[in-house]
Amino acid sequence: MPVTARQFLLNGHPRGRGIEDSDFKLVETQIADPGIGEVLLKTRWLGFDPAQKGWMENIADYVTPMAIGDVMRGSGISEVVESKNAGYATGDLVMGTTGWSEYHLSDGSDLTKVDKDLPPTAMLSVLGTTGVTAYCGLFKVGKPVAGDTVLVSGAAGATGSVVGQLAKIAGCRAVGIAGGPEKCEWLVKEAGYDAAIDYKADNVRSQIKEHCPRGVDVIFDNVGGGILDNMLANIATGARVVICGGISRYETGNLPAGPQNYFNLIFRRGTMAGFIVLDWANEFPAIRKRLAGFAQDGRLAYREDIQHGFENAPATLKRLFSGANKGKQLLQL
Amino acid sequence: MPVTARQFLLNGHPRGRGIEDSDFKLVETQIADPGIGEVLLKTRWLGFDPAQKGWMENIADYVTPMAIGDVMRGSGISEVVESKNAGYATGDLVMGTTGWSEYHLSDGSDLTKVDKDLPPTAMLSVLGTTGVTAYCGLFKVGKPVAGDTVLVSGAAGATGSVVGQLAKIAGCRAVGIAGGPEKCEWLVKEAGYDAAIDYKADNVRSQIKEHCPRGVDVIFDNVGGGILDNMLANIATGARVVICGGISRYETGNLPAGPQNYFNLIFRRGTMAGFIVLDWANEFPAIRKRLAGFAQDGRLAYREDIQHGFENAPATLKRLFSGANKGKQLLQL
Repeated sequence: MPVTARQFLLNGHPRGRGIEDSDFKLVETQIADPGIGEVLLKTRWLGFDPAQKGWMENIADYVTPMAIGDVMRGSGISEVVESKNAGYATGDLVMGTTGWSEYHLSDGSDLTKVDKDLPPTAMLSVLGTTGVTAYCGLFKVGKPVAGDTVLVSGAAGATGSVVGQLAKIAGCRAVGIAGGPEKCEWLVKEAGYDAAIDYKADNVRSQIKEHCPRGVDVIFDNVGGGILDNMLANIATGARVVICGGISRYETGNLPAGPQNYFNLIFRRGTMAGFIVLDWANEFPAIRKRLAGFAQDGRLAYREDIQHGFENAPATLKRLFSGANKGKQLLQL
Repeated sequence: MPVTARQFLLNGHPRGRGIEDSDFKLVETQIADPGIGEVLLKTRWLGFDPAQKGWMENIADYVTPMAIGDVMRGSGISEVVESKNAGYATGDLVMGTTGWSEYHLSDGSDLTKVDKDLPPTAMLSVLGTTGVTAYCGLFKVGKPVAGDTVLVSGAAGATGSVVGQLAKIAGCRAVGIAGGPEKCEWLVKEAGYDAAIDYKADNVRSQIKEHCPRGVDVIFDNVGGGILDNMLANIATGARVVICGGISRYETGNLPAGPQNYFNLIFRRGTMAGFIVLDWANEFPAIRKRLAGFAQDGRLAYREDIQHGFENAPATLKRLFSGANKGKQLLQL
């Protein structure tokens, strides 16, 4: 018989401003019994990503637009509570596009079973979109060579912390930029970075020069704005600049200035490139296996910031934009 | 016996401002007789390029720094007036790094003989650094495919006008941005562009959308600033953005804003790259042969803006930054 589920619906497009509580509307709805081939899923964890604000703004045209009244889009891990699909049994844990809903139905086509050798939440962090984004952005776009210096902004974030460790595995020097001494200490002591730069405390440009004395071969940028400009000021010949995200674009009403130092791409024969990780979706299973191997070998540490309670989903998303999260931002229901 | 030569010496570094007459000092000097293996060269034409301002500023670190008192650096075509080098006879025309001097000596190692099948000045324009820059930037960095739309800023300039015609030869749609109706008319009627956008008259962004309805596959940017931003707003998936120059960076005291729309590189999986044409110097002879073939076939029109009188060299350089030049800027001595 039908279950009652709380859901957050999109109620506003936060363009040119921060996310507000009124951008969401909490409703209750009935989820029908699963039909033939379907499973009923109960959401256990939700994962959060800065890209979600882009989806809410409805200007990120690489995904289907979100309309007012849609269930807020998001990924999560769910438990199968009723199955009419031979591929899934009650109790199975699966990752999928749950949306911000306590229950939902699926025909299984969007689901990935959770690897039982790792904590289930790993599928939302180091093995999830976060981990494959780090892997594809670094290796397919940044193309580091052993001995390269890799400089990462937003380095203590979910993606950035994986990038630094993958760079180390690939024989590179990894330097991270993060906000505050706690994050910087974590980068060096736990996440394997060779050096960390606190953008809140230091002169970023001179610190980059100090820690990257031969210049930066690969930039992995999650921030944009002034930090990207400072990184571009110290690129090495042939540098690859990976544009993964731009959290600074979401912080304020106005877009931050573009990078004036893009002109160094001429002097240094550099390349700047963006990417959409979904373009490599067919490779995700193979990439996840590699990442799981690194994690099981102890070469890939990751941390998760787990908040609690479905009703706190909007507040949890906002943590990404204030820099409050330490590691992958999750919500346990 | 020694000849007397007028020379312009660098007398100021025009950083963060336009070029002023006081940045040069006109002197007379004695040029000695050629030694064994040397030739004495009389300068016949000088070529001008925006990069020369970068050299004067002494911040373009891909070339040897210029110091106050150095002969102003530049390329030109000279006539051999006395030869003690078996490779050169009196009367030969050669291209080389003449500097801004009426005479100079060379051991021949920096000289290229002028192709007799084309007007000699072609070696400073369509077959010179200008032409090979257009060729390498478009084909080696931009990598156009037949059917692509190629959008060029500074399209009526020496490099830009060659880029558009090479794009047409390669089976692409060529759209150019230039300043003023005269230049735009020339682009379409003489230089083979499919469409021209007058940035002084039109809403550049909407004009780009109109003339590039499927988006821009290759941007060839000579301008930077707001024009680059407008071009980035309309890139197609997989676009390649070639950063060749940035004339807007030289116009004013302050650097123009960086391109805010660099973020479209993510949504469109785009790449932005700079280059230094000298990296392909070993291919210049082969590239010149191709360009000469296109010119002789009538597929590559070019125009030259020839000023007169050695004493006018500083004023001639300044024409590049006011947009006064129509085609390759030259000075005939």
